[in-house]
Parts: sequence; C-alpha cells; structure tokens
Amino acid sequence: PHVTHSQASSVLALLLLLEGGMFSASRPAELLEKVFQHIHDHQDEFVQTLKEWVAIESDSVQPLPRFRQELFRMMALAADKLRRLGASVDSVDLGSQQLPDGQSLPIPPIILAELGNDPKKATVCFYGHLDVQPAAREDGWLTDPYTLTEVDGKLYGRGATDNKGPVLAWINAVSTFQALEQDLPVNVKFILEGMEEAGSIALEELVEKEKNRFFSNVDYVVISDNLWLSRKKPALTYGTRGNSYFMVEVKCRDQDFHSGTFGGILNEPMADLVALLGSLVDASGRILIPGIYDHVAPLTEKEKNMYKSIDLDVEEYKNSSQVKKFLFDTKEEILMHLWRYPSLSIHGIEGAFDGSGAKTVIPGRVVGKFSIRLVPHMNMSVVEKQVKRHLEDVFSKRNSSNEMAVSMVLGLYPWIANINDSQYLAARRAIRTVFGTEPDMIRDGSTIPIARLFREIICKSVMMLPLGAVDDGEHSQKEKINRWNYIEGSKLFAAYFLEIAKLH
Amino acid sequence: PHVTHSQASSVLALLLLLEGGMFSASRPAELLEKVFQHIHDHQDEFVQTLKEWVAIESDSVQPLPRFRQELFRMMALAADKLRRLGASVDSVDLGSQQLPDGQSLPIPPIILAELGNDPKKATVCFYGHLDVQPAAREDGWLTDPYTLTEVDGKLYGRGATDNKGPVLAWINAVSTFQALEQDLPVNVKFILEGMEEAGSIALEELVEKEKNRFFSNVDYVVISDNLWLSRKKPALTYGTRGNSYFMVEVKCRDQDFHSGTFGGILNEPMADLVALLGSLVDASGRILIPGIYDHVAPLTEKEKNMYKSIDLDVEEYKNSSQVKKFLFDTKEEILMHLWRYPSLSIHGIEGAFDGSGAKTVIPGRVVGKFSIRLVPHMNMSVVEKQVKRHLEDVFSKRNSSNEMAVSMVLGLYPWIANINDSQYLAARRAIRTVFGTEPDMIRDGSTIPIARLFREIICKSVMMLPLGAVDDGEHSQKEKINRWNYIEGSKLFAAYFLEIAKLH
Repeated sequence: PHVTHSQASSVLALLLLLEGGMFSASRPAELLEKVFQHIHDHQDEFVQTLKEWVAIESDSVQPLPRFRQELFRMMALAADKLRRLGASVDSVDLGSQQLPDGQSLPIPPIILAELGNDPKKATVCFYGHLDVQPAAREDGWLTDPYTLTEVDGKLYGRGATDNKGPVLAWINAVSTFQALEQDLPVNVKFILEGMEEAGSIALEELVEKEKNRFFSNVDYVVISDNLWLSRKKPALTYGTRGNSYFMVEVKCRDQDFHSGTFGGILNEPMADLVALLGSLVDASGRILIPGIYDHVAPLTEKEKNMYKSIDLDVEEYKNSSQVKKFLFDTKEEILMHLWRYPSLSIHGIEGAFDGSGAKTVIPGRVVGKFSIRLVPHMNMSVVEKQVKRHLEDVFSKRNSSNEMAVSMVLGLYPWIANINDSQYLAARRAIRTVFGTEPDMIRDGSTIPIARLFREIICKSVMMLPLGAVDDGEHSQKEKINRWNYIEGSKLFAAYFLEIAKLH
Repeated sequence: PHVTHSQASSVLALLLLLEGGMFSASRPAELLEKVFQHIHDHQDEFVQTLKEWVAIESDSVQPLPRFRQELFRMMALAADKLRRLGASVDSVDLGSQQLPDGQSLPIPPIILAELGNDPKKATVCFYGHLDVQPAAREDGWLTDPYTLTEVDGKLYGRGATDNKGPVLAWINAVSTFQALEQDLPVNVKFILEGMEEAGSIALEELVEKEKNRFFSNVDYVVISDNLWLSRKKPALTYGTRGNSYFMVEVKCRDQDFHSGTFGGILNEPMADLVALLGSLVDASGRILIPGIYDHVAPLTEKEKNMYKSIDLDVEEYKNSSQVKKFLFDTKEEILMHLWRYPSLSIHGIEGAFDGSGAKTVIPGRVVGKFSIRLVPHMNMSVVEKQVKRHLEDVFSKRNSSNEMAVSMVLGLYPWIANINDSQYLAARRAIRTVFGTEPDMIRDGSTIPIARLFREIICKSVMMLPLGAVDDGEHSQKEKINRWNYIEGSKLFAAYFLEIAKLH
C-alpha cells in the first residue's frame, strides 16, 4: 500500500518508541550519559545561579522606577551570562512607555541572542521572560520572596518557576555541552523579554520586525512558561484556548436614579442587563448563544483516548481548588471542558453599586462583562456576530426603552499544535529518556498569546514544554520550583537538543 | 339615620369647603389679613435671616471636626432665635459618635423647644433639621453655596429648601403673631435636629425617651421636609413608601478563579446570581415574587379619582428626568406606580469585577443587592418570607453546587396618613386661603422614616406639609427655594395655626 510521508514518520516514531525512545547511535548515548552526569554533579552551581537571578526584584507589574532599574539589571545579567557562553547578544532598546498618569518609564530591552549558525544543524529558539509578578514578604510569604530558599527539595522564591528557572535550565543544557567540550547539537537562539507579566509590551512588534532576519533560519520554537498537570508526571502542551471579551452596555441616562423617586416607572438598566447576562449560559455550563458550538472541532475517538492516560486525580484537584463539586465528575469531561470546549464566564458589572452596605440606587448606565474562551475551530468574527445577534434578540423581546450596545473589546485566537509534528515527537522521546514515561499530552484552558504569536508570525513549529510541577504556585505567595524539576528539566533540554539534531 | 363621628366630620369638612375653606368668624379673618400683610412687609428681613442660616456650613455628611463645629454653631443660633421668641429651649446633649476609622466626633444637640402651654389650646409640634448635604463651589455651583443668592426670585444656597427655609417659615409665622402682639392661636413645640442627612443619629431614642414628657401633650406633628409635585401648585403629602433591602450571596469559595483555568467546569457564582436577580422582576416592571401583591391595598374609585386632579405634565416630567420613556404613559399610572404600588430595583453586585477594562476573573463569591419599596398594607415579615422562598426555589432548580444565602438587611415600613383626619382638613383649608387652590394630595415614593417614627412612637396625627417647588433641587448643585414659596409658606403656617385653633 501507498505510504504517505506522515504515515512514514509515525512508523519511524513508533520504531523509536519501541526501542525505548532513545537514539540508537552509541556515541550520542554515551554523550547523553556524560551530559546527565555533569548536570547532576553541578546542580548546586545551577541552583546558586537561580538564586542570584531570583534575588533581582524584576517586577514588571508595579510601574515604579526602582523596579524598572531592577529589570534593566536583570536583562543585563542575562545578556552577560549569554555572552560568556559565546553567544552574540543583541539587547534591543524599546524606548519608553507612557503610563495613564502621564509618567514615562523605560521598557527593559528584549534580548535576541544566538549561539552557533551551522547551516547543517537545526536551529531551535527558546522564548522566556525574566520579569516577575509583584511579591512582598508581608503578602503572606513564609520566606523572603527574593531569597531563593530550599525546603524539602522545594526552591521557594518569586520567579523560581515563572520563568527564571526554565530559562536557566535551557542555559544549563547549553553550558553543559560547552563544559564537556562537546559541539552543540543544534544552533540555539534566545528571545528573552522583561515585560511578560505586564502584557509583553513591544514583543509582537519586535517579532514582526525580526521575522525575516533573526527568525528567518529558526526551525523550532520552544516555550517553557506553563506547568505540568501533575506533581510528578511530565507534560507536553499542544494547545491553549483563545478568548473573546464582550461588553454589553445598557443605558437609560448617564446619571443614576434614586430608587424611591423612580422605582416602579422605569425600564431599569440593571433589570435589562441581568436578563441579558442570564441568557448566555445555563446552569450546566452550556452556552446558550445559538450556533456557538457549530465550529467546535468534533471529538475523535483518538483524541478521546488521549485523555484517558492523563494523570489527574479529580478528588485531589477538587480539594486543592477548594471547590465542592465540579460540573463534571470524570477526569476526561473536566479536562475536555477546560481545553477543547468553549466556556463563557460572566466577570462583573461596571456602573452598578459595588460597595458594601445598602445603597438604594437605580444605576442609570451599566456595562456587563463576559468572555468566551475559544477553541479550534471557532471563528472570531462568527462568534462576535452570534453574540451580538443573540443579545439584540433577547433585548428586543424585552421591549425596553433603554439603549443597548454590545462590543467585543478583545479577541485572541486559540492555539493548537500538531502533536505528530517532528518537534513534538522529539520532545516526547526526550521526556521518555529523562523521566522514563510518556508525557501527559495537555492543553491550557487559558489564553497564552505567545505561542500563537510565534506560530502566526514566523510560521514555524511552536511547542510548549513545561518543566514545573502543578503545585508550583505561579503568581502566588508560595511560588517554587522543585530542585528535581529544575535539574531534570535541564537534562530534558539537553536530551531534546540531541533528539532534534537527529532529525537533521 | 345613625351618623358616625367620621361621617360627621366629613360633613363638617364639606361645609367648610363650600364656604371657601376660610373660617367665618370676622376677628380671625381680620387677624389673618394683618398677619399676611406683616409677612409680606417683612419678607426682606425673613430672607436676611435665611441668608444668615445658610451661611453656616452645617454639613453633617462629611465627618470632619470643622463641620461639627459649624453644626454646633447652627444649633446654638437656632436655640438663641427660639429663646428670643420666648420659648423655653432644651438643647439635648447627645454625646459623641464613634466612626469606623476610630475617630470620635460630637453629635450636635437636638433642640426641644416650647412656646405656650395653654391647656385650652391645641399643641402643634414642628419637626425640622438644620444640617445640610455637602456643597462646594467646585462641585458645579454657579453661586457660592453658602451665600444665599437671589436670581429671578430664586434664593440659591445649600439648605435653602432642605430644610432651613421651611424651619424659618414656621418661626416667621410664630414671630409674626408676636410682632402684631397677638396671642399665639396654638401652643407650639419644636424638635430640630442636626443629623438628618447622616441618618438622624440618636433621634429615635430621644423621641422614645421624651414620649411621655415633651411629646405627651402634642396633638399634631408637622414635617415640612419634602417638595411639591409641581412648580406652582401646593401639595399635601399623606404617604411614603417603605423599603425592604435584600442581599443574596452566592459562594463557591472565598477567592476568585481565573476564567482560563476554571472556565467550563464550575457552577460560576455570577451565573447563579444573574439567574436569581433575573427572576425578580419582568420587563414591564412587575415583581415576579409569588404572593408579593397579595396585601397591596386595593385601588378604590375614590382614590383613583384623586390622581386625576394632580398637576403633573408627563412630557415635562420625562424631559426633566432625562428619560426617553416611562413604563407607563398616563399621569395616573405613573404616580400610582411610584406611590401606591411596590417596586423592585436591583442596585448592584458586590464581589464581582466592577472596574473599567477587561479582567478575566470568575468571582468566587458575589452578593446581589436589591430592594422592594413597600406600600400599605404589605407586611414586612411576609415579604421577607416570600422573597426568601422564591429565591430558594429558583436556586434549587438550578441544582448548583454553590451556597446561597438571602438576608433582609433593612426593613422600613411605609407610612400613610388618613387624609380625612382633622389636621389634614385644616391644612387643606389653610392652603386654599393662601394659594386659592386645593392642594395636590401626594405621596412620596421614597422612604422618609421620620413621619412613621413620630406616628409609631407618639401615636398622634402626623402630616407632611411641603413648601418648596418640585424644581428646588434638594441635594443638588442648584438647591434653592423661591422667595414666593418661602414667604407664602410662612403665611401658610400662620393660616394653619388659626385653622387648628378653630378645631379646639
């Protein structure tokens, strides 16, 4: 029978899996062993470097000059580290940012770095960020957030897992080949930013600008900015949901009314708005907007089976989420409704009484806010039309004398990768090598625009390869990365380089 | 046939109306003419006194020591004025008030004053307040709010109509009898407070305490703290709506969720809450809570007719309210739905996202707030049960795993007076005398607890007799009282004294 290219590569992948997922050549196997041993032996140095990086308060969220200084110091430290590896480093000046209060703050540079440009090798590009969420001891940290502190193998500190640890794991992998005086199996590029937690200001423009220069010879992009689904089982992420954010305004007049002097004779905007918001989703979580599910990718048997092997303890998940009951009871249904089905959440209302106490106001103008997490293959403009038509329909049936206006204020597409793409297969083999197990093939229910941004602009294979465990507490007052994850993660990147090299 | 007492007094009232509403004795008629002339001739002095009172920034809303000093100065000035009329004045010390921030502020005294205690005369007690809402030139006032400024017969200034003008009108009436060396036709009492705009702190306790002393011989209570329904036609107010304020909490957990990582698998509290709030009232303003209309007083033909003669231009009302369309088209329906039917208003939600912008949060715990304006003869505890049962019913049908809790946090009964009560009939006659027209018999859709408080505690006839025109702009940046209303109002109180005297 005729064998297609993709069937052939599946067969190849299968054969490789059958032999334990490792490359068969004896030299690479020996090299890998040496690499692993080196990383193992130098782990304290690697932890020490992470400690130095965590010590920098590179907070991009609080717009204060002293944090910006720290961000510049952080980017300079990373540039220096890369230069010492022999990379050519370009710290791209991004000018400054005008804040709503009129203040102007400098934007930390984005680092574009490259190490090796052998046309016979594959070129992998790693995206990471070195800025962090705010953290202060008094927020409830048990240890100083900017002093990496090890407790029972857990390295607590702001940025430890998000995203300084993974950036250093990648650097550790590169530096290990150099320390062992081994040729790097791949050309390596870095794009490191310092404004991710503040919305990746200036990133998209730069990627667009560098599309035909810095990114022109990139074959694969790796992002390591999310977490496993489990504490122990590694994962590979192949999709994120998109988001379309809507605002629906109902207005009688700009000023509020007193409910004593007007209650009973008005079409009250809040009554209209709760009716509109109440028409969006039913008690079972199903979105009631006609046609909204029409383009959702049908569930295949193959996909369904993939969910079965994923490591998720529903009871533990419920407990750690402090949720009494989810809408679904099985692991498979829960994950599918987080990853591959759309969801609609009502976020709140602007313009109504939101304080404590008992104010007797009839709000004159209110804005309801809700968003729909989009999945393949929903079409943004179709969704926008469906939402608007539905709300106009519900509103017109009320025969209200108020004015209604619906707008989609944000639209971010979902991202999905082909899990049979050669980079994914290489990563799976690397994971088997390091962890001795197949990864959970996971998605992320939230919207991470970066993967889609790289995919859309530079049109190369993009993969999210997380290192941290599910309980790493990104953004929380107990952020940590396990020493084990950090060190095994460094090995994983080294193994991934060798797997990628074998593809070329 | 047997004639009851109330039938007899109706007949008497009718006879009095037929003769033009004026007392027939010649001496009182002459006296009244002199009184009116005196008030007319001394109007500039009366305006000057109002100017002095308005000049005091007796703001009870902003809890600042300097405003409290002004309030004490205001109460002392009023006490002095009453003493100079010959009244015995008791400035009741009310101690101090602990603010939420720990600050302690002194409460201005309540003045209890009496002038005359002839057991053969009726005793009328006037309630008024001398504190005002905040005002500052920069809020948008065209004139300095604390400098009474006359423009085209309108006296602009904070407190001019609410409530310093009406208090002085009453004092003007009393002082005119004295200036003319005429015996006061009635014994007069005053209860003047300085904390009305801040919720009448300590008033109820004092009235309760003085029930069998100061208030023991009071026959009639007059309040003049609201407005006419018209610019030109006087009004007499015989009812106010009550209010029952509800909070309904829906909780999944205390913390919020991220809509990316939890959207799709939760019973979201906001979805439950909008369904609950959406079940309360329909698009026509009708309350959907079963049984809620059961105890509403049926509309009689007589009552219906009363609405016909009321002076309300619906078009002008719509324009001045900046409302495109009311739920009802006729004057009668509008007024009935403001005054004699209950209404339900949704005020807002606490705990949801209420800022501007697009936050993708799933609120973990939200509190919806709504209130029902109560009318005779709704029963507070029945309403409370009906609301709770209804919400529990709607919630249980959703089968949500969240927790719901409903509480009634405030319950104020409506107030209604018997418009055939002798004090009302006397006031109507006085109005005809001064204005040459029957008053609009009006209610107030909002909740003014004072009338009900006096009625409940001292069990005497309570009447609300407004002096100000509908466009006086209480609480607004263009508060004023018309010179005409202030002066004719002073005459009205004098005529009212004489009408009351005739009842005894």
